[in-house]
Amino acid sequence: MHTYHDCIPCFLKQALSAARLATSDPAVHEHVLRQVLIDTAAMSFDQPPPFMGQRIHQIIREATGSADPYNSVKKKYNQLGMSLYPDLKKTIGQSRNPLETAIRLSIAGNIIDLGAAESVDEAEVFSVIEQSLTQHLEGDIGAFQHAMAKAENILFLGDNAGEIVFDRLFIETLQQDHITYVVRGGPVINDATRSDAEFIGMTELVDVMDNGTDAPGTLLDQCSEPFKEAFYDADLVIAKGQGNFESLSDADQHIFFIFKVKCPVIAAHTGCPTGSMVIHEKH
Amino acid sequence: MHTYHDCIPCFLKQALSAARLATSDPAVHEHVLRQVLIDTAAMSFDQPPPFMGQRIHQIIREATGSADPYNSVKKKYNQLGMSLYPDLKKTIGQSRNPLETAIRLSIAGNIIDLGAAESVDEAEVFSVIEQSLTQHLEGDIGAFQHAMAKAENILFLGDNAGEIVFDRLFIETLQQDHITYVVRGGPVINDATRSDAEFIGMTELVDVMDNGTDAPGTLLDQCSEPFKEAFYDADLVIAKGQGNFESLSDADQHIFFIFKVKCPVIAAHTGCPTGSMVIHEKH
Repeated sequence: MHTYHDCIPCFLKQALSAARLATSDPAVHEHVLRQVLIDTAAMSFDQPPPFMGQRIHQIIREATGSADPYNSVKKKYNQLGMSLYPDLKKTIGQSRNPLETAIRLSIAGNIIDLGAAESVDEAEVFSVIEQSLTQHLEGDIGAFQHAMAKAENILFLGDNAGEIVFDRLFIETLQQDHITYVVRGGPVINDATRSDAEFIGMTELVDVMDNGTDAPGTLLDQCSEPFKEAFYDADLVIAKGQGNFESLSDADQHIFFIFKVKCPVIAAHTGCPTGSMVIHEKH
Repeated sequence: MHTYHDCIPCFLKQALSAARLATSDPAVHEHVLRQVLIDTAAMSFDQPPPFMGQRIHQIIREATGSADPYNSVKKKYNQLGMSLYPDLKKTIGQSRNPLETAIRLSIAGNIIDLGAAESVDEAEVFSVIEQSLTQHLEGDIGAFQHAMAKAENILFLGDNAGEIVFDRLFIETLQQDHITYVVRGGPVINDATRSDAEFIGMTELVDVMDNGTDAPGTLLDQCSEPFKEAFYDADLVIAKGQGNFESLSDADQHIFFIFKVKCPVIAAHTGCPTGSMVIHEKH
């Protein structure tokens, strides 16, 4: 997916809120804004939005001198996710259709995204979890179950810290032992990296690899060779979150995108209103 | 008032919606966005927001090759205002406090602002008029009436086309013959210029002058000498709209700013929530 004109004001908004989350120094906020203005003026709008998302967070890391300014925020959400784990596990186990419930909860976990929102509080997570169990799901779960039953080599592209706990529950429910879970290759906002996968026990459950880059999505051009090999060798890819959708919607693979629609641009692009829970198949 | 960091994303949003209002050509939209990105990166944030507002509309006029891309929109709102005039005149005449009602309606007219909103439909204007008659008014009308009674030389800085009809009703209610009404020196979005003042009959009511510039506010540095003379010679200045507030909040004059709070930045700056009706005195 290319960058829409409506993404441009949003880049600046995201840059400002991310800079404020990383530091309270207004001189840094101004520096980040000016650099993002310059870089956006020069970028190709043929690139998907995570291309500029990546650049924004490189600028913030350079300006703050911190390699991972959202480290403590990620820990907080991982801990929140782990504190919810036992109850969510029970909810799935007791439900009429455990796989559907696990998918719904995995989409609910996608609310923990500091790229789209300035902050996510616990009450909001609870409310989204509750709502996700009954909200209409855009897409065909039957097609997903059918594809899963046939696939022998599944790549699961994760999105954010905290959310990764919900993905763990999803993967546990799938009961597939041939899944590889993918995290970002380096810190970018609150996206999950290897340390998050270790912290929440994903590494004990399945193979975990990183994609070799620090974009808040999957920019194949920049990904490592081992990742690209795994990506194209997979029978089936599960991709969580808007960033993975934005960057892989034109990729040559069989992908199920699983995400919450978080902005009017994606709403218009997908035809699903903002707030929708989506499972979108792409051949 | 200086430009806040939160104004930066909004400049891009305004530029895009104004460009879309001026032309349906996406190549022009992209050109406008890129140029506004470049110019915003280089601007001094000590300037008030209308400084960039002015630049945005210069860029749009250059890119579209149209000296006044919103001409037809301004005509539409002037006609809407004139069609409402007889009923509004009656409402004021029959009210318990005609001056207060006229001020309230003049603030209601400030909703016709395409700088802050992408479009304003008739139903919205009707609803805002209705609401304005009873909504809480932030500020001291008594102080305004007191100052008006003493002033012998009043400068009234207008804001938008359409809204200028509401200002005419306000001025008629004031029954002062020493008022000069000021319009912008050149077209900028839907702000009122001399032709709007002529169309709605303001020129038959009071002296009308322009400020010599095409900013969506009053940037004194850029205004004509005759305007600056009139500005500093006035006993009292009435300034309509956010743009005039943003650009004159630090001016060395006795000003009553009369406006509707249209964005979170002004809400934080003034302490009045978005949507508030404000009459704010500055010495």
